[in-house]
Amino acid sequence: MTVILLTSIAGYGHTMPKDKDPIKIALVLQPISGSRSGPEMSQGPQLMYEGLKKMMADMRIEEAVKEIVKLTPEEEKDYGAWHRVGMANGHLNETVARQSKKGMFPLGLLSNCNSLIGMLAGMQHSGSTRRPLSVGLIWLDAHADFNTPETTLSGMLGGMPVAVAAGKCLYRLRLKGGLEPAIPEKNIIMMCVRDMDPLEEELVLNSHITLISTEEMVKLNRRMKVEFESLCDRVDVVYIHIDLDVLDAPDIPGHTFQVPDGPNPAQLGKALKYMMENPKVGALGVASFPIQEEVRDKSLGSTLEVIKGGLLGLQAR
Amino acid sequence: MTVILLTSIAGYGHTMPKDKDPIKIALVLQPISGSRSGPEMSQGPQLMYEGLKKMMADMRIEEAVKEIVKLTPEEEKDYGAWHRVGMANGHLNETVARQSKKGMFPLGLLSNCNSLIGMLAGMQHSGSTRRPLSVGLIWLDAHADFNTPETTLSGMLGGMPVAVAAGKCLYRLRLKGGLEPAIPEKNIIMMCVRDMDPLEEELVLNSHITLISTEEMVKLNRRMKVEFESLCDRVDVVYIHIDLDVLDAPDIPGHTFQVPDGPNPAQLGKALKYMMENPKVGALGVASFPIQEEVRDKSLGSTLEVIKGGLLGLQAR
Amino acid sequence: MTVILLTSIAGYGHTMPKDKDPIKIALVLQPISGSRSGPEMSQGPQLMYEGLKKMMADMRIEEAVKEIVKLTPEEEKDYGAWHRVGMANGHLNETVARQSKKGMFPLGLLSNCNSLIGMLAGMQHSGSTRRPLSVGLIWLDAHADFNTPETTLSGMLGGMPVAVAAGKCLYRLRLKGGLEPAIPEKNIIMMCVRDMDPLEEELVLNSHITLISTEEMVKLNRRMKVEFESLCDRVDVVYIHIDLDVLDAPDIPGHTFQVPDGPNPAQLGKALKYMMENPKVGALGVASFPIQEEVRDKSLGSTLEVIKGGLLGLQAR
Amino acid sequence: MTVILLTSIAGYGHTMPKDKDPIKIALVLQPISGSRSGPEMSQGPQLMYEGLKKMMADMRIEEAVKEIVKLTPEEEKDYGAWHRVGMANGHLNETVARQSKKGMFPLGLLSNCNSLIGMLAGMQHSGSTRRPLSVGLIWLDAHADFNTPETTLSGMLGGMPVAVAAGKCLYRLRLKGGLEPAIPEKNIIMMCVRDMDPLEEELVLNSHITLISTEEMVKLNRRMKVEFESLCDRVDVVYIHIDLDVLDAPDIPGHTFQVPDGPNPAQLGKALKYMMENPKVGALGVASFPIQEEVRDKSLGSTLEVIKGGLLGLQAR
Amino acid sequence: MTVILLTSIAGYGHTMPKDKDPIKIALVLQPISGSRSGPEMSQGPQLMYEGLKKMMADMRIEEAVKEIVKLTPEEEKDYGAWHRVGMANGHLNETVARQSKKGMFPLGLLSNCNSLIGMLAGMQHSGSTRRPLSVGLIWLDAHADFNTPETTLSGMLGGMPVAVAAGKCLYRLRLKGGLEPAIPEKNIIMMCVRDMDPLEEELVLNSHITLISTEEMVKLNRRMKVEFESLCDRVDVVYIHIDLDVLDAPDIPGHTFQVPDGPNPAQLGKALKYMMENPKVGALGVASFPIQEEVRDKSLGSTLEVIKGGLLGLQAR
Amino acid sequence: MTVILLTSIAGYGHTMPKDKDPIKIALVLQPISGSRSGPEMSQGPQLMYEGLKKMMADMRIEEAVKEIVKLTPEEEKDYGAWHRVGMANGHLNETVARQSKKGMFPLGLLSNCNSLIGMLAGMQHSGSTRRPLSVGLIWLDAHADFNTPETTLSGMLGGMPVAVAAGKCLYRLRLKGGLEPAIPEKNIIMMCVRDMDPLEEELVLNSHITLISTEEMVKLNRRMKVEFESLCDRVDVVYIHIDLDVLDAPDIPGHTFQVPDGPNPAQLGKALKYMMENPKVGALGVASFPIQEEVRDKSLGSTLEVIKGGLLGLQAR
Repeated sequence: MTVILLTSIAGYGHTMPKDKDPIKIALVLQPISGSRSGPEMSQGPQLMYEGLKKMMADMRIEEAVKEIVKLTPEEEKDYGAWHRVGMANGHLNETVARQSKKGMFPLGLLSNCNSLIGMLAGMQHSGSTRRPLSVGLIWLDAHADFNTPETTLSGMLGGMPVAVAAGKCLYRLRLKGGLEPAIPEKNIIMMCVRDMDPLEEELVLNSHITLISTEEMVKLNRRMKVEFESLCDRVDVVYIHIDLDVLDAPDIPGHTFQVPDGPNPAQLGKALKYMMENPKVGALGVASFPIQEEVRDKSLGSTLEVIKGGLLGLQAR
Repeated sequence: MTVILLTSIAGYGHTMPKDKDPIKIALVLQPISGSRSGPEMSQGPQLMYEGLKKMMADMRIEEAVKEIVKLTPEEEKDYGAWHRVGMANGHLNETVARQSKKGMFPLGLLSNCNSLIGMLAGMQHSGSTRRPLSVGLIWLDAHADFNTPETTLSGMLGGMPVAVAAGKCLYRLRLKGGLEPAIPEKNIIMMCVRDMDPLEEELVLNSHITLISTEEMVKLNRRMKVEFESLCDRVDVVYIHIDLDVLDAPDIPGHTFQVPDGPNPAQLGKALKYMMENPKVGALGVASFPIQEEVRDKSLGSTLEVIKGGLLGLQAR
Repeated sequence: MTVILLTSIAGYGHTMPKDKDPIKIALVLQPISGSRSGPEMSQGPQLMYEGLKKMMADMRIEEAVKEIVKLTPEEEKDYGAWHRVGMANGHLNETVARQSKKGMFPLGLLSNCNSLIGMLAGMQHSGSTRRPLSVGLIWLDAHADFNTPETTLSGMLGGMPVAVAAGKCLYRLRLKGGLEPAIPEKNIIMMCVRDMDPLEEELVLNSHITLISTEEMVKLNRRMKVEFESLCDRVDVVYIHIDLDVLDAPDIPGHTFQVPDGPNPAQLGKALKYMMENPKVGALGVASFPIQEEVRDKSLGSTLEVIKGGLLGLQAR
Repeated sequence: MTVILLTSIAGYGHTMPKDKDPIKIALVLQPISGSRSGPEMSQGPQLMYEGLKKMMADMRIEEAVKEIVKLTPEEEKDYGAWHRVGMANGHLNETVARQSKKGMFPLGLLSNCNSLIGMLAGMQHSGSTRRPLSVGLIWLDAHADFNTPETTLSGMLGGMPVAVAAGKCLYRLRLKGGLEPAIPEKNIIMMCVRDMDPLEEELVLNSHITLISTEEMVKLNRRMKVEFESLCDRVDVVYIHIDLDVLDAPDIPGHTFQVPDGPNPAQLGKALKYMMENPKVGALGVASFPIQEEVRDKSLGSTLEVIKGGLLGLQAR
Repeated sequence: MTVILLTSIAGYGHTMPKDKDPIKIALVLQPISGSRSGPEMSQGPQLMYEGLKKMMADMRIEEAVKEIVKLTPEEEKDYGAWHRVGMANGHLNETVARQSKKGMFPLGLLSNCNSLIGMLAGMQHSGSTRRPLSVGLIWLDAHADFNTPETTLSGMLGGMPVAVAAGKCLYRLRLKGGLEPAIPEKNIIMMCVRDMDPLEEELVLNSHITLISTEEMVKLNRRMKVEFESLCDRVDVVYIHIDLDVLDAPDIPGHTFQVPDGPNPAQLGKALKYMMENPKVGALGVASFPIQEEVRDKSLGSTLEVIKGGLLGLQAR
Repeated sequence: MTVILLTSIAGYGHTMPKDKDPIKIALVLQPISGSRSGPEMSQGPQLMYEGLKKMMADMRIEEAVKEIVKLTPEEEKDYGAWHRVGMANGHLNETVARQSKKGMFPLGLLSNCNSLIGMLAGMQHSGSTRRPLSVGLIWLDAHADFNTPETTLSGMLGGMPVAVAAGKCLYRLRLKGGLEPAIPEKNIIMMCVRDMDPLEEELVLNSHITLISTEEMVKLNRRMKVEFESLCDRVDVVYIHIDLDVLDAPDIPGHTFQVPDGPNPAQLGKALKYMMENPKVGALGVASFPIQEEVRDKSLGSTLEVIKGGLLGLQAR
């Protein structure tokens, strides 16, 4: 179950490392959406998985592990969409922590951004002792997802996960996912966020969160690099979270919440490659794949191009 | 547009009052559900309306006014399910207050319990000055609907309206509906509530809310009467809110959240008649009619029997 | 400096106690108003004092002590009306506690209700040890004075003292006056309150404060007595506070905030006599004497009749 | 491992039930004190156990189970006295819930009152489903133990457990013990509490907690019975907690915090017998046995007399 | 109603733009002071207006609109000084938003700093959609006006408007003025503040507010420019607020709260010119004109020199 | 009682100032530990004093004043370890303020870090008016001591003093020590902190506190200097607090909480010298001397070397 890495990939100038073990990738699928307006189980993770599997084969990277997050039969009987998301995050936490402790790199294929809590919790508990690690978050999304119940217009949990992770609201949901302590605002960098509700923006601006614009990220400019490296220096491990709507709207057709003025897949892939080269990055998550059949090829192509950047960064360590 | 009242109705021993004006009823339909898991517009209010219209005709009561709550074209473009519920409550508030000031008795046919805010706000602003009236609430529901975002398992707004009305959470939603000040807990009586989430129960028990059991209400026992009359004495106006799931489960088939051990329609109708006789009661709302076609007749029969009790109480003033 | 008590006063059927020391009365004048809209020093306390002195002489009661609360020269230079009220209350506290420890009964002649904090603090520290006594409050006022800065319409400190005393807001002002702990809501009985702002009413109703209506007090009905005696039983000492606007409007002409439907002076005097007979009552305060010259006689007559009731109660112990 | 019950015990007029299974008692020793000022492990539980074992043998009651709460080897390495108390409560919770589900009656022999959380949590999770039971608390202690970190004079955790259980502070400690939701104040009855810090008293009086005086309890007066029975009626299960300092000071020599004016052992035993007869009472805990050798016999005698009352009540069901 | 701009003004080196429309200035007078210690209507706005009108004529700038904020007859009857300020701000909001949407530049002549809320709210709602704009604030005042009711020494509302605008307190007052969301602290730059109460300073230093010293502003140093330009870049619109006590004490004789070490009018005018050149600046407000007759000329001269700087900046866009 | 300063000390290249008064040092011993797990009075201050006295004599520096903080006889009777720490801090405050006003430099020899509050309060009240000075804090400790009761694992007050000083918790304890306002987070610089609990770290990172690493301090690098000088510029006075566990573990044997990777005494002494040269530094405190006899010489040597650095800095002003 070794991972054979590609020698060279056009556009990134990557060369295979000779003298160290290839990084093993644990693919973790989290299909539980917590949705009440659609099916509770999203097809997105499976669709991304199939494309990714093929790409990894083309890249001659074997998947080390594939794991799908599920509720237990007892939990399945429990009432409440938010509660079920909490329990699903608990399992995601356990899976990610376990794989990470085994030396694998967890790559989360996530129904939506509610899985943030589980991914962060998994990183937090991936250390060698009972003591939680200090975790940094790179948030790549067109939205800040920093609403709280008091600010939300929609009531959608999907607009709140960063606020939850930062301890601003819904602490029971955070604890169900196993995330304690919350992520300090100073350990959160948001990139390419370009659509915030007014009350949400007030919260973000009253926090210690760092905002990096699309332009800064695309240019890999000095501030972007300093903030990123500085975060890596001061935490134990970094988790990179991508909501696919971070991409420029035409590049991710079918996404419910697409927003213009995002990076294109090549730009995002390049930035991701840069960041993933840093060994402090301990996991990557990709969320919210748009499943509409008519635009699926385009979206999948974009998604894979982004992930490829990340994998190349990983190889370049 | 006068209201001709029935002389005598079997089972209630009612006799028509001779020397005062018949009470005029304003039927207010609020079909906006705030739902994301189904159609945003509920058929329930219209279905209740049709049955009620016929029953009122049979009872020789004319409807004085029929009004359907709608968003403005500009509001229609606004984003966010919870926000839209807030705006709908603002219109409901305005409608109820207007009809009430004209001397009519608003009877709300409501998609669900989220309309509580608008009905209460309408009562609050039905006075003759800018000063808000002091409003009491009789809450008839199998559930307390006293969750907050921090306690909810489902994330459903429909489980929170009493907590919102009491100022426990979501104050912006309350203000959009025009309810300010919040309803003091001491002015809330819950009857027949028999299913609370554990964390919700903690909140209810740490409040000043009065709880009357199904048995107490059905018996119209001393405590029930003392609490009800005492509330009427100390507030300006009382609003009675019925979620149809307050009825015993078999009597309201198809309701999503039915719970056993509720009153039957005759019992609830009788209690409602008793309460509606008190002139402090300024409006009645009936919410959450189950629309499944196969059981609709049964549910409608139950619903109308309950409302009839209320109308008879109104006539008996 | 002994106090010679009147043998019998018409209307109260009082007979002089033979075999115990007459209670000594310490008259404490607090003229600092904390006002920014008028003179900082109120004439009210002095005007009441002059009338009272004469009445006490007529009643053959000598005043034991007369003391006027002042700021120190250093404090006099301090900025800020609210801060100055806080410091004045600190002095009032010290004065009342000192006189009370000497065995005198402090009778506060107060510019306005902001002196509540100092009177309560004086009672709290009138015990024989460093441990604060448990204090009960009888609040006689047409208003609840339970606004907080978040609810006030006027911004007037004079509308907030009970909320401050109960620990709801402005804790620094409370601490400057020396009141710690705050007065528990369960130890507060409000009588004759009949004018609350809507948001203030919400606060009062969400509290554990007991409300006794004018009618109940005037009748000295069972509930009034039970609540009063029960309070006396469970605390160490009770302070009775009278804002003269508690009186029916025509009886206290010139008062800025007069409200109809209050007790007349005879009724209030009678109730006060009843309460002052209870030895747990440790001090009395009378606030907000209206100083307009044209109606002063009427107001002073009313005021003295009320206080006389209190003095008779004191004698009847 | 059956329990043979005594036919008749002088002074209580108890007669053995003939036709039902004897109640099986699980003795649960919790020696972890969370103390920093003395040894971390208290001898008190073991000393009580030895006396109780003998008394139960005399009463011909066999102990069904004996279990001693311990930290795991991994937890043993964890830092922090309060944290260790939290983990110990987690184990106590699990033990009590397990024994209770097996149909046994847990009798906690507790180092001190910090074990309250674990006992309550055990009751809460003793139901047949994942849903937490609704728990009532009878608190028998000379002190209210309702301080919070903001009110405490000593900083001792032992002065805070009821406040923690009621959700007023230290929620992480509560969650470590497995208590969620917190116990609503309306479900707490304090008996014989006669020594509160001033700030603690403010908190208690601003709560919905019911206070029953020593005199009321000793007399088993109407209010005591109504409050107790009413609590039993409205919750799923009741836990009775005794801090031995509830006893009159001379009856419990050596207790660090003894207070005069408590009940004597016979009086407390009688009240306990009355309460334990109610089948809603699901567990009993006895805490803070004073271990000084010179007075141990007296204290043990008092302790056993109290517990005997409880056991007789249990038998009388 | 066009505005003819002056070709050249000594000291600023301004040259008239040739090829764009002159900016139209809407003069908005807000005379409602919310004062209880003086007349409720301030003469200041009118006095500034008269001077300004003449200066604008000299500068050959016509006023486009003059509007005076008033309460409606119904509001006029409403009780409460703070409430009245809130309603006045609601009207100011509406006026400023309306003029701004018409393309005019609102210049507020304000009784005092309580008008901050209305000016900010007007900017917030000056966009082309229902969505509130993101607003930045440049605060030029000798004081921070960042007290809350819990920190204030005076109780004066006039010491709190920035705290109110930032959402720290008095949210109902903010909402009456129409400001929602609050202004994020990161969008507030204070310049020349040199007198803060100790508790107020604690609040300011625990916030994200940027402080620029008088010296930095006078020098137009790098940090001042970077902070200002960066704010302009990240918000939709900037409002500049001047309390005239920002000026060095001798330059603004008669001001109640004058403080030494401020800029002189020429220095402030120059800084204002620099800032007003930035097209993101959407409105200017000038508050607290000292009306004492004996020093009025001096104060008016200072005031006009400052405003002239602003107008020149506007012309230089 | 003059202070004769040493001409030159090896390793620091110090030269005696010729033309100004030598700084007078007030030695303030605070032996009250607030401990419940050991003796309430610590020997540490006296042990440090004896060593320091000898070193000062060797350095030909006379002590100007020696003062030992004590409770009054009345306070001695008061209950509660935390309360006693509060009162002790009140006396420390008074002593430090008094000596400082007399022109002396207070050097606190402190049982433990709980004395932080008293030292800061003393600085705060060392100004020439009633107005509290603005105080900056340099915190030199291996730990952040920023726990609150909600985050602490141990419950030890000694892990919370910075959080208390910053107003995060235990405000009554802060007020007993006389510290009001709290120290703004922006005025706190922590140096060499290298061991934080996870929840404590979350609090620190969500604050405005500046963190300087051991490496930065040892190097006296640019960031360290800029942050230190900038703090000195913006406050009235700076207090430097040293917990001796800030030293590398081997250099402070016997300390309960020693942590590796700290500076050695020479390095810390050098940094201290640099900082103490700044005249804004108004007091120095040294806490937590380990009293074990077997390692005392080593620890005392380290301690004195550090303090010597500070004294040399003081001389170099």
